[in-house]
Amino acid sequence: MTETHLILTIRCRDTVGIVAAIASALAESHAFIVESSHYGDAETGLFFMRTVFRPTGSMAKTLDDFRAVLRPVAVRFDMTLALHAADQKMKVLLAVSRHGHCLNHLLHQWHSGELPIDIVGVVSNHEEMRRLVDWYGLPYHYLPMAGEKAAQEARFRMAIAMSGAELTVLARYMQILSDDLCRYLEGRCINIHHGFLPSFKGAKPYHQAYSRGVKVVGATAHYVTSDLDEGPIIEQETQRVSHSLDADAFVRNGKDIENVVLSRAVRWHAEHRVMLNGARTVVFQ
Amino acid sequence: MTETHLILTIRCRDTVGIVAAIASALAESHAFIVESSHYGDAETGLFFMRTVFRPTGSMAKTLDDFRAVLRPVAVRFDMTLALHAADQKMKVLLAVSRHGHCLNHLLHQWHSGELPIDIVGVVSNHEEMRRLVDWYGLPYHYLPMAGEKAAQEARFRMAIAMSGAELTVLARYMQILSDDLCRYLEGRCINIHHGFLPSFKGAKPYHQAYSRGVKVVGATAHYVTSDLDEGPIIEQETQRVSHSLDADAFVRNGKDIENVVLSRAVRWHAEHRVMLNGARTVVFQ
Amino acid sequence: MTETHLILTIRCRDTVGIVAAIASALAESHAFIVESSHYGDAETGLFFMRTVFRPTGSMAKTLDDFRAVLRPVAVRFDMTLALHAADQKMKVLLAVSRHGHCLNHLLHQWHSGELPIDIVGVVSNHEEMRRLVDWYGLPYHYLPMAGEKAAQEARFRMAIAMSGAELTVLARYMQILSDDLCRYLEGRCINIHHGFLPSFKGAKPYHQAYSRGVKVVGATAHYVTSDLDEGPIIEQETQRVSHSLDADAFVRNGKDIENVVLSRAVRWHAEHRVMLNGARTVVFQ
Amino acid sequence: MTETHLILTIRCRDTVGIVAAIASALAESHAFIVESSHYGDAETGLFFMRTVFRPTGSMAKTLDDFRAVLRPVAVRFDMTLALHAADQKMKVLLAVSRHGHCLNHLLHQWHSGELPIDIVGVVSNHEEMRRLVDWYGLPYHYLPMAGEKAAQEARFRMAIAMSGAELTVLARYMQILSDDLCRYLEGRCINIHHGFLPSFKGAKPYHQAYSRGVKVVGATAHYVTSDLDEGPIIEQETQRVSHSLDADAFVRNGKDIENVVLSRAVRWHAEHRVMLNGARTVVFQ
Repeated sequence: MTETHLILTIRCRDTVGIVAAIASALAESHAFIVESSHYGDAETGLFFMRTVFRPTGSMAKTLDDFRAVLRPVAVRFDMTLALHAADQKMKVLLAVSRHGHCLNHLLHQWHSGELPIDIVGVVSNHEEMRRLVDWYGLPYHYLPMAGEKAAQEARFRMAIAMSGAELTVLARYMQILSDDLCRYLEGRCINIHHGFLPSFKGAKPYHQAYSRGVKVVGATAHYVTSDLDEGPIIEQETQRVSHSLDADAFVRNGKDIENVVLSRAVRWHAEHRVMLNGARTVVFQ
Repeated sequence: MTETHLILTIRCRDTVGIVAAIASALAESHAFIVESSHYGDAETGLFFMRTVFRPTGSMAKTLDDFRAVLRPVAVRFDMTLALHAADQKMKVLLAVSRHGHCLNHLLHQWHSGELPIDIVGVVSNHEEMRRLVDWYGLPYHYLPMAGEKAAQEARFRMAIAMSGAELTVLARYMQILSDDLCRYLEGRCINIHHGFLPSFKGAKPYHQAYSRGVKVVGATAHYVTSDLDEGPIIEQETQRVSHSLDADAFVRNGKDIENVVLSRAVRWHAEHRVMLNGARTVVFQ
Repeated sequence: MTETHLILTIRCRDTVGIVAAIASALAESHAFIVESSHYGDAETGLFFMRTVFRPTGSMAKTLDDFRAVLRPVAVRFDMTLALHAADQKMKVLLAVSRHGHCLNHLLHQWHSGELPIDIVGVVSNHEEMRRLVDWYGLPYHYLPMAGEKAAQEARFRMAIAMSGAELTVLARYMQILSDDLCRYLEGRCINIHHGFLPSFKGAKPYHQAYSRGVKVVGATAHYVTSDLDEGPIIEQETQRVSHSLDADAFVRNGKDIENVVLSRAVRWHAEHRVMLNGARTVVFQ
Repeated sequence: MTETHLILTIRCRDTVGIVAAIASALAESHAFIVESSHYGDAETGLFFMRTVFRPTGSMAKTLDDFRAVLRPVAVRFDMTLALHAADQKMKVLLAVSRHGHCLNHLLHQWHSGELPIDIVGVVSNHEEMRRLVDWYGLPYHYLPMAGEKAAQEARFRMAIAMSGAELTVLARYMQILSDDLCRYLEGRCINIHHGFLPSFKGAKPYHQAYSRGVKVVGATAHYVTSDLDEGPIIEQETQRVSHSLDADAFVRNGKDIENVVLSRAVRWHAEHRVMLNGARTVVFQ
């Protein structure tokens, strides 16, 4: 019997009767809806829904029982439907280069139980972060960029596969993934870009921002696609800067926003709040 | 036949089957759900829902037809249920004293068609704003505080009743309403407080904030209750200040936030997005 | 005799002794420094300073007296130096097309004495805003784009010259100025761009932002240069948006930030707080 | 010889000639001013100044040489004057209870060289954070509250004295210091309050904020005084919340702001940017 909350996400063509069909199937199974959000995109004609419910009633029901109950509805509306137990933490692999702030932030939040994920290891092309990762008792996959990129990426992919990671987080990994790896990780790899996209793509975004003389800087968490820094945006945040700050101070100020933005994006993804809608995302907060 | 969108809001004890019942009733009437939000408050056990739908199908349906369709559901779950046509603009009466910025902002937004309301007049205890209000072709109710407060409030109440105002907005009215008038206007009177509640209640909040040496100031839009500045908060916004600003600069900076905060609160109320949940509000954005 | 505050701004190569020379000249003339900010740009080697002072002592001193006192220092350090009386309001000409929100905001702030400027007229290529401008008793220069652009711009330039405008503000003017006019107005023409530069240059920035799926939108006030939307940025502000808002809602939300950003930029320019530093600005708040 | 930047801070009654005297003394000693900010408080009549300069010229000068040069000026204007070498890191002692997020954030920033301080140890009334502090190779002073508070505080005071700490940071220490200890630490003890002061003083501020139904939460870093949560505010920051978040989510969201706010306050204090102005602070950013 499932005591925990269940999270249902669906995506389909929008039409009359979807909510009625889902809600009726749930009600007939004595599911108590805790939280629910819908969104119908008038432009694309797509419908998105996230519903959190808990089983009630005398009859114990498993996740599979609910899947069976929902199957006819999914078929009828040609839905992409997923059902997760809320207490089943998503397995996450982190990747980092030399800037450890996002890594440190995520590890601390995970360790103190604030982030509903299960970190299964850290990949890095450098050795700098090994000691920190060791402290947390996590495997450290040192994958230097020394030789061929393809070989390094094959080992990266292996680390993902072996760890069972459902999500890969590039926490300032500073390497451009091949198209191949991007496709392999589609929809399950989040990058933190240290700039306010779509401004300042590519390298040294804070230095670009400084040169342009902006008065506000930002950071962006997005899904990785083969189109560099063009993936669907999950979360952004900004912060005021002034003429008296130099590019290094932009970098320093930026780190605090990067921590916050990446941590939110990971949480929302892990709670199944983020859904792809073409080049954009639906984020049910 | 109703071509427009309809807005349904409900409030009741939370239990299994509410969404199913509502959504099924709508689906059977060929209503296409455009937007929908729910919220179940685990603390109070109350359920809130706002659903926007448009009629489809060959059979024309009026607002009353839908009311009839929904009535059995409302009875079954003992709901407070309301149904509005989205193109039926809410009638709003504004009240102002001498500071005209919020008044000017609301009038401009209304005049340029950005705010989905129908302003039916302006009440003031001063004459200063008459010329501006005249320009917009609106009635100006000059209600000086000269004599007895009760008499002035009776005339205020008359202005509300005669204009058919469904919402009264205190756009820097600077007068404390009697308990009686507060009760009369319960849930349909919004005030802008020029401070970040619950800090700095009462008079001269920016000067209080300056004396306390805060680094961020704010403004608060809330429903008026007989408990001064304690009504349910609809919206708040903040802005950074520094030691180099004096109390007058706090006031000046504050005006921009007041405009934005009050305008959002009025829009959300007029779109039936705000629901009372005890001393708090549910705001379906 | 000058009773008012005086505002001194200087710009020169940075070196030892600048502040000492300026401050000593002022002290010898019994000037009491009310407010002062410096900035030395390590990258460009330029020094910027803004000092507000008021004359004290028995000897009355005019603006020209102080100019005479400061001249030797200016010569010694090869300074660009300007001295203004704080109560001498800057003459400002506004330009607008059909979106009146920034115009309305600036006119109200000016009218209520909040903005330390002297608005001398409004230029527009449309007639829509005439009635509003008339209400404020200001000249309305209707300059339609019907014929040749050069002819229209000649009339625009004439309006600037005849009104004695020291600053021209493009308050959603929606016309691209010719290189010629841009050069003529260099450093004294502020534009509000309804997007977060350098993202989303050119037309329909909110629609661009919507398509890209950003989670934060912004507005930018900048000096106009012949390089479209590339001029030095004076002020920017941002606001969160969500997937549930469509492009029209982006536009609507954006208007509030545009008002605030443009109003701040105009105030700071009028108070001689903004200085050009190559493609960037120094803003002494 | 001093190769580094020097930071001069002064505070005195405001009058004519202060800047001239200081700047002239510095110029005569061939000091190149890198950064300078003044503030004259019209209300209190106090003048504040922070100037960063670097020695130039052939003659080597020590910190004491500059102190000697400035002494006559300090005497003349009855100044509180301090001179620090910018590369002389301030010694900081941290105090924490069971919530480790601020501690973890400060330790990481210090360890990665981002925070210009020298952490000399951590005090705690619990054992939970020992392992983390050990990893950073810092002394952990476990001072349980078991016995008499006075005895515990005596040991706390000893830890401060023995470590040579110039600043004590209560990084979620959750204990109210005695009046005595507050006085001992006046102006050199920073606390992070997990609420937007002056709202929500005392215990469980996020739960208070939740009950009041605010739409924005905040955190406040302030100097500790014997008047609980009433000390001069150094920095504040806010974040939007919605009805769908419960009190625990308020807490979680708040942690990110606490990290940022406390880290900024510590940096600014360590860089001698913060000066007391009665119950308020001057912060030269």
